[in-house]
Amino acid sequence: MSAILKVSPLAPKNFPNMYPITGVRFATVNAGIKPGNGEDVTLIVLEAGTVVAGLFTKSMTRSAPVIDCQNKIGMKIKNNGAAIIINAGNANAFTGRQGEIAVHEIVAALSKRVEVPVERIFSSSTGVIGEPLEYEKIINVLDFLVDSVHEAKIEDAARAIMTTDTFPKGSSIELSDERAKIKISGIAKGSGMIAPNMGTMLVYIFTDALIDKSELQSIITDLNEETFNCITVDSDTSTSDTLLVSATGKSGIKVNKSNLEFREGLREVMLDLAHQVVCDGEGASKFIQVRVSGAIDQKEAKLHAMSIANSPLVKTAVAGEDPNWGRIVMAIGKSGASADRDKLSIRLGEILVAKDGWVSPTYKEADGAKYMKRQRLNLNVDLGLGTGEATVWTCDLTQTYIQINADYRS
Amino acid sequence: MSAILKVSPLAPKNFPNMYPITGVRFATVNAGIKPGNGEDVTLIVLEAGTVVAGLFTKSMTRSAPVIDCQNKIGMKIKNNGAAIIINAGNANAFTGRQGEIAVHEIVAALSKRVEVPVERIFSSSTGVIGEPLEYEKIINVLDFLVDSVHEAKIEDAARAIMTTDTFPKGSSIELSDERAKIKISGIAKGSGMIAPNMGTMLVYIFTDALIDKSELQSIITDLNEETFNCITVDSDTSTSDTLLVSATGKSGIKVNKSNLEFREGLREVMLDLAHQVVCDGEGASKFIQVRVSGAIDQKEAKLHAMSIANSPLVKTAVAGEDPNWGRIVMAIGKSGASADRDKLSIRLGEILVAKDGWVSPTYKEADGAKYMKRQRLNLNVDLGLGTGEATVWTCDLTQTYIQINADYRS
Repeated sequence: MSAILKVSPLAPKNFPNMYPITGVRFATVNAGIKPGNGEDVTLIVLEAGTVVAGLFTKSMTRSAPVIDCQNKIGMKIKNNGAAIIINAGNANAFTGRQGEIAVHEIVAALSKRVEVPVERIFSSSTGVIGEPLEYEKIINVLDFLVDSVHEAKIEDAARAIMTTDTFPKGSSIELSDERAKIKISGIAKGSGMIAPNMGTMLVYIFTDALIDKSELQSIITDLNEETFNCITVDSDTSTSDTLLVSATGKSGIKVNKSNLEFREGLREVMLDLAHQVVCDGEGASKFIQVRVSGAIDQKEAKLHAMSIANSPLVKTAVAGEDPNWGRIVMAIGKSGASADRDKLSIRLGEILVAKDGWVSPTYKEADGAKYMKRQRLNLNVDLGLGTGEATVWTCDLTQTYIQINADYRS
Repeated sequence: MSAILKVSPLAPKNFPNMYPITGVRFATVNAGIKPGNGEDVTLIVLEAGTVVAGLFTKSMTRSAPVIDCQNKIGMKIKNNGAAIIINAGNANAFTGRQGEIAVHEIVAALSKRVEVPVERIFSSSTGVIGEPLEYEKIINVLDFLVDSVHEAKIEDAARAIMTTDTFPKGSSIELSDERAKIKISGIAKGSGMIAPNMGTMLVYIFTDALIDKSELQSIITDLNEETFNCITVDSDTSTSDTLLVSATGKSGIKVNKSNLEFREGLREVMLDLAHQVVCDGEGASKFIQVRVSGAIDQKEAKLHAMSIANSPLVKTAVAGEDPNWGRIVMAIGKSGASADRDKLSIRLGEILVAKDGWVSPTYKEADGAKYMKRQRLNLNVDLGLGTGEATVWTCDLTQTYIQINADYRS
């Protein structure tokens, strides 16, 4: 498989410089869960005073650690620290009672070592579905992890949570508010099985802002709708999607959900990570933004946008650099949302391709063909019906996607 | 493209022997619409007394000929014959007012030549979306077509309606009722953009049964739900899906919708054609039956079955002959319908793979791997919740699908 997994052509040049978040420390190790020599277990220790908010996959077959996190995220616990433990290489999904035992054992063992109640220990697993997680391997490395946690090791963590990912994903900002120096840093993994029905695969974001848990939960629930829930690689929703946002409060700067700067900063980090997941979509060679305007309402705009973004025929046309806009028409037609053939218009970037129910008289196929050679494409549709708008992001569908996924377990 | 399009490994050995249907005659010709030398226009002439029922795509961007057919199919016209004219190579979809003119001109010209009112002339177009149909080319060959129609030329018609299809699709039966010798013969085309929201691509079925139009319409509406609406190649719904069923009445044997033998015979032809479309799915190397039982109701069973059948990760695993049943679990989880992880079971054919929320203790990976080498696979899921059942059919997702569709117009 390694021969296939060259770094995505859409990868950023470098892993970004990450602001350390006071009160958050990371450690990673190779525990032998993921094939190969890479590190595969990550510990994140959060100091007392940290609030943790989270969103999880809506899959009906979600994994044992997701169910465990969901049970805990709403609890009101005396706040004396928290920890997150993550393994790559095994999703601990559809592993029945044995999967629950694995989560319980890992969490209990870590709870003792970091002196934090089990209700404040969150865990994630990502990898193959249906195989038992050898949790003893994880318990065996806990002492090492607890001893080696460090504020600066976030990039190591971004690498250790990877599975079919070809590059580590990080995003970090410092808010420019004069009165404040709130920092936000996050990491993510995700490459295939990406059509989040919540937050994509595994995402961990940290900030030193001081904020109530309910306020933080409210903000990320809103922002998720316009970030992680607006990306798709292959229309397949993972059993493991997890987004955890931890606020340590160590900046001493109090924010709430009405604080636009904090909200915008968090949005920027979430969107950046979401885009990086798309850029690492399995086999991706093009980054595609689909923008639909003029729909009856926002919900219908998103239905159309996702219908285009999930269409294998649209995505293979992009892979082939073919300005086959007829397939966009097809995807609009099948979305289930309202459309009027004679009112819709389609643009490739700024190039008007179709309007009033047919190809535009100004459109030249050569212009479309030239546009399709770009690495980043904007497919713009206006339905001419109302004011509903939505933007979603996806990648193309290439032979490499098939190669990766036909061979995944072999 | 021709280098890619080798005949599907799932193709039947031969085109079947087709019973001629008294009152139905076919002619085909190369009019230069489809690239290459193949025949691309088909005329079907139906004798006076024939009733025609039809179902069409529910796409919001359906093609001009589909809209025209829909307008006509419900009309009560003095029944003095009918005709169907079909071209391959251009879908006449999203061609605006010009597309309507093309349909009007073709229909009017044919109406004069066959002496049948325009309301009884049905047309279909299949191929590229968004390019103007050069209808004069079709009008120019009408005289030739009208002069050369013959009862025996149904196989020629099955070939002339092909686009990316790799084999012609036909199905034919004679009902064994003692009192009767009703015959049913049908042809279909379809290979990509197959996730019918009605009947798939182009399907034409003929019978010499004597039946009221409303009864025939009622039967095909029912049967369509369990045949064409239960197949998917790539989850993309065509702008052109058309099913026309013509009953000439020439057998003199009267049937109605309560006649189980006729119904069952028609169902058999429809299902056979639907399966042939799946077998010619673009790039297909495996035929997959997905059966879901134990759902809360039939509708939820179908949601689960279609979620599995449309999952690119399930389909690539099948292409790679990988018994990756975890992806079936994933697809159930994302379907939107009810499921209880701990009650569901999964079988590959007869092999019990998973039950009670985890891998079955009797399951051996080697058995699963061996099963996946078959060309025809049965993926069976029982949800353990109720009595809802559904069966759908699809094919695997291979590199050839990407190859065909990245290069379609080049």
